[in-house]
Amino acid sequence: MKNIDIALINPNSTTSMTRKCAEAGKTVAGPGTVVTGLNPAASPASIQGYYDVAAATMPMLELIKANQGKDAFIIACFDDTGLDAARCITDKPVIGIGEAAFHMASLISCKFSVITTLRRSVPGIENNLRSYGLDRRCARVRASEVPVLDLEKGTPEVMAKLHREIEAAIEEDQAEAIVLGCAGMVALMEELQSRYGLPVIDGVTAAVTLAEAAVRYGLKTSKIGGYAG
Amino acid sequence: MKNIDIALINPNSTTSMTRKCAEAGKTVAGPGTVVTGLNPAASPASIQGYYDVAAATMPMLELIKANQGKDAFIIACFDDTGLDAARCITDKPVIGIGEAAFHMASLISCKFSVITTLRRSVPGIENNLRSYGLDRRCARVRASEVPVLDLEKGTPEVMAKLHREIEAAIEEDQAEAIVLGCAGMVALMEELQSRYGLPVIDGVTAAVTLAEAAVRYGLKTSKIGGYAG
Amino acid sequence: MKNIDIALINPNSTTSMTRKCAEAGKTVAGPGTVVTGLNPAASPASIQGYYDVAAATMPMLELIKANQGKDAFIIACFDDTGLDAARCITDKPVIGIGEAAFHMASLISCKFSVITTLRRSVPGIENNLRSYGLDRRCARVRASEVPVLDLEKGTPEVMAKLHREIEAAIEEDQAEAIVLGCAGMVALMEELQSRYGLPVIDGVTAAVTLAEAAVRYGLKTSKIGGYAG
Amino acid sequence: MKNIDIALINPNSTTSMTRKCAEAGKTVAGPGTVVTGLNPAASPASIQGYYDVAAATMPMLELIKANQGKDAFIIACFDDTGLDAARCITDKPVIGIGEAAFHMASLISCKFSVITTLRRSVPGIENNLRSYGLDRRCARVRASEVPVLDLEKGTPEVMAKLHREIEAAIEEDQAEAIVLGCAGMVALMEELQSRYGLPVIDGVTAAVTLAEAAVRYGLKTSKIGGYAG
Amino acid sequence: MKNIDIALINPNSTTSMTRKCAEAGKTVAGPGTVVTGLNPAASPASIQGYYDVAAATMPMLELIKANQGKDAFIIACFDDTGLDAARCITDKPVIGIGEAAFHMASLISCKFSVITTLRRSVPGIENNLRSYGLDRRCARVRASEVPVLDLEKGTPEVMAKLHREIEAAIEEDQAEAIVLGCAGMVALMEELQSRYGLPVIDGVTAAVTLAEAAVRYGLKTSKIGGYAG
Amino acid sequence: MKNIDIALINPNSTTSMTRKCAEAGKTVAGPGTVVTGLNPAASPASIQGYYDVAAATMPMLELIKANQGKDAFIIACFDDTGLDAARCITDKPVIGIGEAAFHMASLISCKFSVITTLRRSVPGIENNLRSYGLDRRCARVRASEVPVLDLEKGTPEVMAKLHREIEAAIEEDQAEAIVLGCAGMVALMEELQSRYGLPVIDGVTAAVTLAEAAVRYGLKTSKIGGYAG
Repeated sequence: MKNIDIALINPNSTTSMTRKCAEAGKTVAGPGTVVTGLNPAASPASIQGYYDVAAATMPMLELIKANQGKDAFIIACFDDTGLDAARCITDKPVIGIGEAAFHMASLISCKFSVITTLRRSVPGIENNLRSYGLDRRCARVRASEVPVLDLEKGTPEVMAKLHREIEAAIEEDQAEAIVLGCAGMVALMEELQSRYGLPVIDGVTAAVTLAEAAVRYGLKTSKIGGYAG
Repeated sequence: MKNIDIALINPNSTTSMTRKCAEAGKTVAGPGTVVTGLNPAASPASIQGYYDVAAATMPMLELIKANQGKDAFIIACFDDTGLDAARCITDKPVIGIGEAAFHMASLISCKFSVITTLRRSVPGIENNLRSYGLDRRCARVRASEVPVLDLEKGTPEVMAKLHREIEAAIEEDQAEAIVLGCAGMVALMEELQSRYGLPVIDGVTAAVTLAEAAVRYGLKTSKIGGYAG
Repeated sequence: MKNIDIALINPNSTTSMTRKCAEAGKTVAGPGTVVTGLNPAASPASIQGYYDVAAATMPMLELIKANQGKDAFIIACFDDTGLDAARCITDKPVIGIGEAAFHMASLISCKFSVITTLRRSVPGIENNLRSYGLDRRCARVRASEVPVLDLEKGTPEVMAKLHREIEAAIEEDQAEAIVLGCAGMVALMEELQSRYGLPVIDGVTAAVTLAEAAVRYGLKTSKIGGYAG
Repeated sequence: MKNIDIALINPNSTTSMTRKCAEAGKTVAGPGTVVTGLNPAASPASIQGYYDVAAATMPMLELIKANQGKDAFIIACFDDTGLDAARCITDKPVIGIGEAAFHMASLISCKFSVITTLRRSVPGIENNLRSYGLDRRCARVRASEVPVLDLEKGTPEVMAKLHREIEAAIEEDQAEAIVLGCAGMVALMEELQSRYGLPVIDGVTAAVTLAEAAVRYGLKTSKIGGYAG
Repeated sequence: MKNIDIALINPNSTTSMTRKCAEAGKTVAGPGTVVTGLNPAASPASIQGYYDVAAATMPMLELIKANQGKDAFIIACFDDTGLDAARCITDKPVIGIGEAAFHMASLISCKFSVITTLRRSVPGIENNLRSYGLDRRCARVRASEVPVLDLEKGTPEVMAKLHREIEAAIEEDQAEAIVLGCAGMVALMEELQSRYGLPVIDGVTAAVTLAEAAVRYGLKTSKIGGYAG
Repeated sequence: MKNIDIALINPNSTTSMTRKCAEAGKTVAGPGTVVTGLNPAASPASIQGYYDVAAATMPMLELIKANQGKDAFIIACFDDTGLDAARCITDKPVIGIGEAAFHMASLISCKFSVITTLRRSVPGIENNLRSYGLDRRCARVRASEVPVLDLEKGTPEVMAKLHREIEAAIEEDQAEAIVLGCAGMVALMEELQSRYGLPVIDGVTAAVTLAEAAVRYGLKTSKIGGYAG
């Protein structure tokens, strides 16, 4: 059986984040799957809100064009930066990590809440959920007000803010699972899961396993409508 | 790396269908994945409409109870027979083939249409789509008026009915992908795909790769809400 | 004018609950209407969540089959156990008590909230509301965390929990009416109504009057689509 | 048991229509129920579109005020003229015939289509369906282009137009039941039902049985929100 | 360039409110635009809830009929009294102030909350939002429990109630803009805007500029469907 | 009264289209309004589908940054290229021509259909409608299969394709107004309007009058949520 070769593209230019995402991805990849982390050199350091998404889109698309030989592409930013455009330039599967997390959460809970970084990122995530239809399964998108690049630090203040939102999600939103709304949160998944006794979903690892599934299945992006080349 | 052991449960009692589904599933399974086809002895011969779903639910649930050691369960009937109830009796991932097909189709098309068997099955499928939220991505659920057990025969009349609906889906519904709405259609996927030049999604193989993804990811069914044991 | 003969089927096996439901039903039935309480012998003692619904469905359907001479059937469990399947095996009207309560509440309030038993029952009720379309009129489904069989006891603790949720429904949800989300709550309707000065709707009595209406009207279940036999 | 005294108010000023509606209502009323047909003297001769609705509203409301002793009120125009306002001036149940037909149709079919008179009436009916939530169960609202007052004539041309729309509803909309979208169609119900072998719902008779149900149940309009006096 | 002649119709009979609305409208009108305030003599003094809307509709429509020479009509009551009916009797643009405010707020915020007067007005506003589709952009409609005619007084108690709701809208609803849900609030816009640092939208001035836009554009009301004369 | 200075930005690089849009805009602008047409030098020649939108976004945003002194910005491409991102870099009103056309059409029709260029543009337009909420008022988005740059030619073949879709919109969709789904269609508005006797809405002129309205009103983009700078 042929290897599966996945390009995991972090659309921002923070290479430490790319490395962590790729490492996390490798922990779940099946035998014979290769996960290669990539990021553009010229792109915002973090992606928070609509303007950053716009600025990071073309650099990310260039990386897809430059790696057409890969079997699948993952866009490793929770707002699924440029996902629709990416599907226009390849017929290989392209998976956003936000999208991956929402689909996975839908398989194991009746409803989930998302905990993301800043309030400014919330409307874009809500728009995505609505476009996918998975707003029906999402109880609420919550901002922790922890900036992306502070997540790596994991200080007690940062953790306290995340805990507060997760507790509110369980109590107020009746969430049955939590989706971590930022690629930078991948390291926190296990700890939060065992602390709260409910599934905590990270998009990066969800996307890697979903991309493998799509390749194994033989899935190709449709070329007769919105994703025509 | 540990093997993945998947129970593929056909909720109807037609063993030839179970065998074909399991064979199809094996063609997409990754290295180290075992797919075991199972079906209840006492259950309707085919599942068409709400009453058959009700009659097949408890026998299917008994098979899950009797196979708790498996890593994941697939419910291989397109109406996702008893899916919510199944999630109450195990914390392993449980994937319906209708659900799997809808999620996969959402990853590679802006909208898809479903071609199923009889008109009587349409409202149940529409209800499922609405519950998953994926009605937003589904242009239309179409009945071919081919009964489940006639699909195996694949006569020219059967194929003509399927072709007519697929063509209408592309033209009238502006569908960008086709979901085959019956486990019995798994053998037709490739032929239809190459005939029409757009992705044709089969639920059985979609579910096998999705179940592998869920296991590899470490996904557990939430136990704090609707799926509490 | 011919008598109207209604089978009121409690899908669980707790006969004291069946008796209370039938008695409540009789208090609202018109002249010449006979209400007969029935329940399966082998069925869960109470129905809380998706698994219990699955377990209670076939026994309930057997009772409909065994009573085909009745003029209408009521399914006296708030999650409308097996309602769609029931409509496939008779052309007589079949009314669920959840459904009946939602329709009645829609006639006299702009929005209503539902107070049910356990959190695990909420997603199924929400799914039903969505399927009927009446989620548009439902502000929220609230779990009181009182188990079905404790409702009969009516202890001060039980009442306090119900009061708390009703008060929250009026204040937070802006509910204009309350739907009692369990057949076991039928005895509480009047007291709560006078305590809070707003309509409190019970499904059992709602269903009896609605079933009479359907019979008087001459309503038959459609047999050309989802409910074809 | 006390008699039930229902005021059936035709909001237009065509007394022949009032008489026919009241007669139809009496055929389904239970023992001890009195149905009194009323209409304003100064009101449009027929109600077709938003302006007629506006013109007919206050005269209809005056009739409710002048008949406060009745047990329930029916607004016998398919666009449910002034229904929300009517609920502000009485705590007795007020039922619109459009509303009644939609609720009844929801009880016996997965989806229904409405056949009404002129295209100009369609948006108002669609707005009502959306407000009630029952657009989820309505496949389509179809205009037959037969004006209200021509319905009484029942010429072959009139019948041909109705037949064409019903056939389209069954084939194209996959409707499982037909709702007749005008009080003037009440006499056609039986003939159409037997011609097409599916339930054909008339609002007038539906509303009478629903009003009886509401009274028997003891239903009162909520006075703490949108219907406060 | 021809002058633009706008009739600003306050559907209630409180002339001081009409005068204030017209004055507010003039402050935003472009060069060459004339805004004439009008109100019916016989109409409710304020419009709070569905019954008042019904009572004010025909008097308002009479004013439109009596002023057919105007270039555009504004209905200066936040519940958009009789808006659909008004569009049936003229092909000039007719703009409701609720509608105008919702459209404007949609242009500069991802989501907004509405602060209106009494709880009884909330369901009608919610119905309008749903009919326009702009409920998708509205986080919540909040009642301040300040009656319309108390707004003019602007006492500290009145202001405190408004402040409380605006603060809740920003914190709880994540509103990015506030819509003032009553024509009587027009004088408060600037003060609230500078106090809270977010856009505060008033419907009267929004409608005047929108009516100018519609006239300048040459917009005519469609006459082939719901607004046919 | 101060002049209003509007930047009309065509995000593609076809200057003849920019010139035509600006000229069309000037025909509806009020006294004292200046409309300046701008386009990026390096951008796709036309924008058809998601990839072109991505490629045109940053060049368009650069033009906004370089023209911060303007009073309002119009994005003159029917897919509202980069609209959300644009609102993050200015607090002046930013109006998309698709958005403007949808809002205008909502003011004068119960439902409208959109006629756009290629099928590949349809999903993006549908996504925008859903995000604005105005999908509720849009009956259907139709592709004429006329490429953007062929529209200028206006050959009989081009016109025949547009006519066919407009006729289908009126008959099949029950559309009451037509929205022209491409900036290049601005010259066709009047002819189509008089041919079909219903409002035909062009986005460019709609946006100019809406931008004037926003400026006259004093509208500022909110800076506390999704559009924070």
